Amino acid sequence: MIKVYKHEGGATTEVEKVDPAWLKPNSGVWVWVALESPTPAEARLLSDVFHFHELAVEDALMQVHHPKIESYGDYLYLILHGIDFQASEHCFTTKDVDFFLGAQYLVTVHAGMSRSIDKIGSVCTKDDRVLGEGPGLLMYRIVDTMVDNYRPEIEKLGERLDEMEEEVFEKPNTALARRILDFKRDIASLRRIVLPQRDAVGRLARREFPLISEQLAYRFRDVHDHLVRLSDEAMFFQDRITSILDAHLSAVSNQLNQVMKVLTIIATLFMPLTFVTGLYGMNVDLPHFGLGGTTMFWVLMTVMLAISIGMLMFFRARRWL
Amino acid sequence: MIKVYKHEGGATTEVEKVDPAWLKPNSGVWVWVALESPTPAEARLLSDVFHFHELAVEDALMQVHHPKIESYGDYLYLILHGIDFQASEHCFTTKDVDFFLGAQYLVTVHAGMSRSIDKIGSVCTKDDRVLGEGPGLLMYRIVDTMVDNYRPEIEKLGERLDEMEEEVFEKPNTALARRILDFKRDIASLRRIVLPQRDAVGRLARREFPLISEQLAYRFRDVHDHLVRLSDEAMFFQDRITSILDAHLSAVSNQLNQVMKVLTIIATLFMPLTFVTGLYGMNVDLPHFGLGGTTMFWVLMTVMLAISIGMLMFFRARRWL
Amino acid sequence: MIKVYKHEGGATTEVEKVDPAWLKPNSGVWVWVALESPTPAEARLLSDVFHFHELAVEDALMQVHHPKIESYGDYLYLILHGIDFQASEHCFTTKDVDFFLGAQYLVTVHAGMSRSIDKIGSVCTKDDRVLGEGPGLLMYRIVDTMVDNYRPEIEKLGERLDEMEEEVFEKPNTALARRILDFKRDIASLRRIVLPQRDAVGRLARREFPLISEQLAYRFRDVHDHLVRLSDEAMFFQDRITSILDAHLSAVSNQLNQVMKVLTIIATLFMPLTFVTGLYGMNVDLPHFGLGGTTMFWVLMTVMLAISIGMLMFFRARRWL
Amino acid sequence: MIKVYKHEGGATTEVEKVDPAWLKPNSGVWVWVALESPTPAEARLLSDVFHFHELAVEDALMQVHHPKIESYGDYLYLILHGIDFQASEHCFTTKDVDFFLGAQYLVTVHAGMSRSIDKIGSVCTKDDRVLGEGPGLLMYRIVDTMVDNYRPEIEKLGERLDEMEEEVFEKPNTALARRILDFKRDIASLRRIVLPQRDAVGRLARREFPLISEQLAYRFRDVHDHLVRLSDEAMFFQDRITSILDAHLSAVSNQLNQVMKVLTIIATLFMPLTFVTGLYGMNVDLPHFGLGGTTMFWVLMTVMLAISIGMLMFFRARRWL
Amino acid sequence: MIKVYKHEGGATTEVEKVDPAWLKPNSGVWVWVALESPTPAEARLLSDVFHFHELAVEDALMQVHHPKIESYGDYLYLILHGIDFQASEHCFTTKDVDFFLGAQYLVTVHAGMSRSIDKIGSVCTKDDRVLGEGPGLLMYRIVDTMVDNYRPEIEKLGERLDEMEEEVFEKPNTALARRILDFKRDIASLRRIVLPQRDAVGRLARREFPLISEQLAYRFRDVHDHLVRLSDEAMFFQDRITSILDAHLSAVSNQLNQVMKVLTIIATLFMPLTFVTGLYGMNVDLPHFGLGGTTMFWVLMTVMLAISIGMLMFFRARRWL
Repeated sequence: MIKVYKHEGGATTEVEKVDPAWLKPNSGVWVWVALESPTPAEARLLSDVFHFHELAVEDALMQVHHPKIESYGDYLYLILHGIDFQASEHCFTTKDVDFFLGAQYLVTVHAGMSRSIDKIGSVCTKDDRVLGEGPGLLMYRIVDTMVDNYRPEIEKLGERLDEMEEEVFEKPNTALARRILDFKRDIASLRRIVLPQRDAVGRLARREFPLISEQLAYRFRDVHDHLVRLSDEAMFFQDRITSILDAHLSAVSNQLNQVMKVLTIIATLFMPLTFVTGLYGMNVDLPHFGLGGTTMFWVLMTVMLAISIGMLMFFRARRWL
Repeated sequence: MIKVYKHEGGATTEVEKVDPAWLKPNSGVWVWVALESPTPAEARLLSDVFHFHELAVEDALMQVHHPKIESYGDYLYLILHGIDFQASEHCFTTKDVDFFLGAQYLVTVHAGMSRSIDKIGSVCTKDDRVLGEGPGLLMYRIVDTMVDNYRPEIEKLGERLDEMEEEVFEKPNTALARRILDFKRDIASLRRIVLPQRDAVGRLARREFPLISEQLAYRFRDVHDHLVRLSDEAMFFQDRITSILDAHLSAVSNQLNQVMKVLTIIATLFMPLTFVTGLYGMNVDLPHFGLGGTTMFWVLMTVMLAISIGMLMFFRARRWL
Repeated sequence: MIKVYKHEGGATTEVEKVDPAWLKPNSGVWVWVALESPTPAEARLLSDVFHFHELAVEDALMQVHHPKIESYGDYLYLILHGIDFQASEHCFTTKDVDFFLGAQYLVTVHAGMSRSIDKIGSVCTKDDRVLGEGPGLLMYRIVDTMVDNYRPEIEKLGERLDEMEEEVFEKPNTALARRILDFKRDIASLRRIVLPQRDAVGRLARREFPLISEQLAYRFRDVHDHLVRLSDEAMFFQDRITSILDAHLSAVSNQLNQVMKVLTIIATLFMPLTFVTGLYGMNVDLPHFGLGGTTMFWVLMTVMLAISIGMLMFFRARRWL
Repeated sequence: MIKVYKHEGGATTEVEKVDPAWLKPNSGVWVWVALESPTPAEARLLSDVFHFHELAVEDALMQVHHPKIESYGDYLYLILHGIDFQASEHCFTTKDVDFFLGAQYLVTVHAGMSRSIDKIGSVCTKDDRVLGEGPGLLMYRIVDTMVDNYRPEIEKLGERLDEMEEEVFEKPNTALARRILDFKRDIASLRRIVLPQRDAVGRLARREFPLISEQLAYRFRDVHDHLVRLSDEAMFFQDRITSILDAHLSAVSNQLNQVMKVLTIIATLFMPLTFVTGLYGMNVDLPHFGLGGTTMFWVLMTVMLAISIGMLMFFRARRWL
Repeated sequence: MIKVYKHEGGATTEVEKVDPAWLKPNSGVWVWVALESPTPAEARLLSDVFHFHELAVEDALMQVHHPKIESYGDYLYLILHGIDFQASEHCFTTKDVDFFLGAQYLVTVHAGMSRSIDKIGSVCTKDDRVLGEGPGLLMYRIVDTMVDNYRPEIEKLGERLDEMEEEVFEKPNTALARRILDFKRDIASLRRIVLPQRDAVGRLARREFPLISEQLAYRFRDVHDHLVRLSDEAMFFQDRITSILDAHLSAVSNQLNQVMKVLTIIATLFMPLTFVTGLYGMNVDLPHFGLGGTTMFWVLMTVMLAISIGMLMFFRARRWL
């Protein structure tokens, strides 16, 4: 699907086709072409009308690509990743959006739905200023929206982390270890996306490209700051999750310790008692010390009670109870 | 709440409003405007009177932001973090203070109470020199006070670390593991704040900005040294806490070892004895070797005593006792 | 085996020998010489006809070498590694391909079969454009094919990783630990090859050498991006496999925990019961509390049942059941 | 305490006071002022006579400071750390010495005793060449002595490390784990001091300051090499101690393994035997297979012996014995 | 021992003494002076005839020193390390060789035997070209031989690593843990030597010194590549040995798991049986359910067999058997 927005003489209108004349320097027209999951026929626009470099076009139509920025002389080619909200709940996935920024135009290419582009697209024709400030600022608006969408996801990750930390000490188990591993993977994915994204936007912020005005650079520096914070937080999460995995092992060992203490206490309490009963269960003449009736039985019981109490005092001294 | 301090002709006075004329180059007036949790109406001062960049104003009014420094031509925008003394006891939190430094003015923005700003504010009108040396030196004073406030917190962290190290070998347990994890998080938070702070102040110390005179740079170099030490110490603490977590696992395993040794000694002592009693408890004709009365009983007791002593000697040889 | 492809006047033909006249600047002829496992006699071509530096020739004929790029004035010497598809299934091995790129020629040297070179070689005489765009683009084509061959291998590694992660929590065992270690080694091998490869191609992409035109640099930048992603993925895999090894230890400990719980429950259930039976097995006058017949037996059974139920309730309270 | 050494006309004498005239460029006089734990009155010399920057003076009089070097135009301010030999035996502590180096003078400030300064001080008046080669070379001599004092400490640390490595496999225990942790801390302290020291001296070696002549730079390069080796060794020790902590955990687990094997062997040997005795201890009609007298007893003994031998063979097959 | 080789007019001869005239620029003579464990008298040659810097001479005569390169104007001072083949079998040690390279001469200093220098020395007088290509190329030859000697050692280390990896899963034990630790130390030693060596040769390869011609730089670049590979392999080994130590802990835990399973199975099998025998061993009237003779015994045996089979089925369900 192609949508073409044209801004001329202060007004933005949605049009059907791109007129190559608009793309000339100082044409007085600003165009935004948004390609959503373009068909091969629609994609031909990129090479036929805009004459983008074949490698850039190839990358733009491919699904998975790492964030990067490349200057092809009079246009910039930028790949960024947005949060994929259509992906399953439990994992963190992203989707790439490609930008071609020229002096007179912005071309965006993305597969499937993009919330950020839909949002900007819908206000574009209503508010003339959106495209009226030039394609650079328009690109900033889209990029800013995309980066802002990371924030709630980061917060959700932070909450999951807090829960896992709680659980590690409450009831460490294999299922938790698995979730910790899954989380670690999500964090690594996040970092893998955010880091090159940060670097690409950083190059915009540092004004490496003449297409980016100083005013625009201030704005991209702001986006860059957000991405620095995101990558910082990803690093921080990664640190914490590693500690949590370590703590999990520690907690499992602690639990084992508790179990073994119970076993040891039980065994140590009953083994001497069982020995005493075995002793007086032998089929040999047993010393009764002149005690008749069940007195001997109660004497033995008393002895065994004394042994038990001694044992318990020993455990208390060792701080096991 | 807004407080405005004006220094003119060698005297500092607290005034009600800022006169835009003061802000002109070489106006002969130095102003410090301190905004504490400004209302939206008060905040308008930043854009209406000072004409700060909208992104900087936005950041200044937002609560959480990473330390950074940015030059907007004739003014600097600096974000630093101070210790938050109003936060709960057990965790380490910070609060950002925003500075706008121009040739004639300093504007500070912070939410809630800031001990450093209150302190400087209270001496500002009493001692004319505080503002009388220019807004740059005033900013240095505030920044220096903020950084100095980290020192006691760092020392408290060091003490907590010493206690935990002690406890790890005294009685390792799950609660301790949890506190270690919490501590690790605190340290990570500290590093996350101190590192960008160090870099921001480092840029002031390297005189990257013409607003900072050489005399001022010496002073910021001193603050920078303090921040280098803080970040160094944070790194050192992080190293130690990681070792402590490892040692905790080791200590738990050692404890388990002790418990298992006790169990093994008890079981190994009593199992052969119980076997002997079982043997002479069988309802078959037992060999009495011609021993009558309770003699057989005492012979068996002696045999069992010998077995026990043998076992104990075996344990001693293995260095278990 | 030597294959010589000559492109002159728009047509590519396979010829027998290299005419030194072709190698002169602007000779109007483009040559590709492909040496596959060259005999010493064939290898002499490198020094006798092309006059390559003796160290480069030595490296080219040696089997194992790290990826690198070196400029010898009017020719470039490049070593890259391709996936070795003839190696055993279970490990990841590579094979080096050497390139000598001059203004008029490309010389490739490799031992054994190379899928990438065979593929390009076979289209070379059919499609005049392959060599017709110059030796630089020809080299790009071969390099691109070689790098593309990594992709399916990487995906296979990713699948192996997923399987291992699954298995770690299903049934951790020593054989799995061994496979994890083997995998780690494979990943390390991959990184060791991809990293210098990335750097070598990066130098082509940055146009450090005058032989590389700007058009060619765009293409190598694309290959470079692929290699960046590969090295990125290798790093990511390494991270994950380290976590998996940690999780394995955690899973083994968890398993031990489960085993010990069963033992503890069994021992704790039966030890008190065995004690009671031992007590009433003693050969002393036992208290029957006036109960005749088998009543005493059933009373004791009831007592023991009560003890067992009490124990199970204790375990339930400790969440062991 | 202040000591003033003055070199004029080839002779070094100890004098009472510093004459400001000596400090002028090309005064023909070289002075070394050594302040040991200066009183506030003595410290005033730094600002009143030498006019050092107030921040440098403040740092010099403060006790704990990180190694650094700073140029204040016509003098250098250097902080280095020497080994503190007055500190307790078991831990590694350092003490800072401050240097102010001008064209005509060297001022050293330190708290408590400094072996290096005392040593150079005592030869200073005896050997005219010591101060006669200028304050730069004098500073080199002191710095060199301070750095050389690290060597024996490093060797002691190396020996402690060897002992701990030995002990880890001999008898791993909690006290050892504690000593490992203490050692790790010492190493970290060493690195924290040596690294900035290395960087500060490195700046002298690279001739960043005009006060340092080329001849002097060679000498500081030598000191720098020593510091590089020290920091290298500290890193190496840190690596080893980390491995030792890991090995400790491994050794503790191994020990547990041994203990558990003994328990398992004992339990597995006696449980079946106890079962057999229990069987023939039942108060039911037992099968005697027509065997009279104690024959049945000996038959059972033989059966039990066979069971024991079978068990032991099973353990041998599993390589537990 | 001093050996002096002199090359003049195309012929190399071994001479007794060095004539200072030879050392002058363009003297037409090339000299190689090899000092093996020089006596103090022999060592005086370095300062008296060659006038090397006193610090360099000091370093050259000292035994242990880190690889480095330093330019003293018209001569280079290089320290490299060769494998020490006279050291004990089980550890990896190196020995430093010092080079002084001038325009007309090469001076080498080493303690004890050096295989590389002996080898080059013995061909030096037989083949006039060895010294005939100048002292720079001679130094290259020695350095190349020294670096080549690392290769077999590296391969031996690789084999030791493979063996240890095998053994970790076959029979993890404390002795193995110790060997792993020893190996780790060897690898660290290797890295500590190879890294600065790589950097020193890298500076020769990058032609930082005018004494090194472009032709020579190509050759040193080749040596540099070898050192890069060595340091790369050392890093790779270090990674693997760390994984092996982790795997060892995992294997020990696994082993413990196996032992505990056996104990648990045995205990769980026999405890219920022992309870049953105890039950019918009580001296109370036991229920016989009207069964006479040994029938009751066989009934109980059957019950116990059923219990055992049930237990075994439970273990099978838990995948313990």
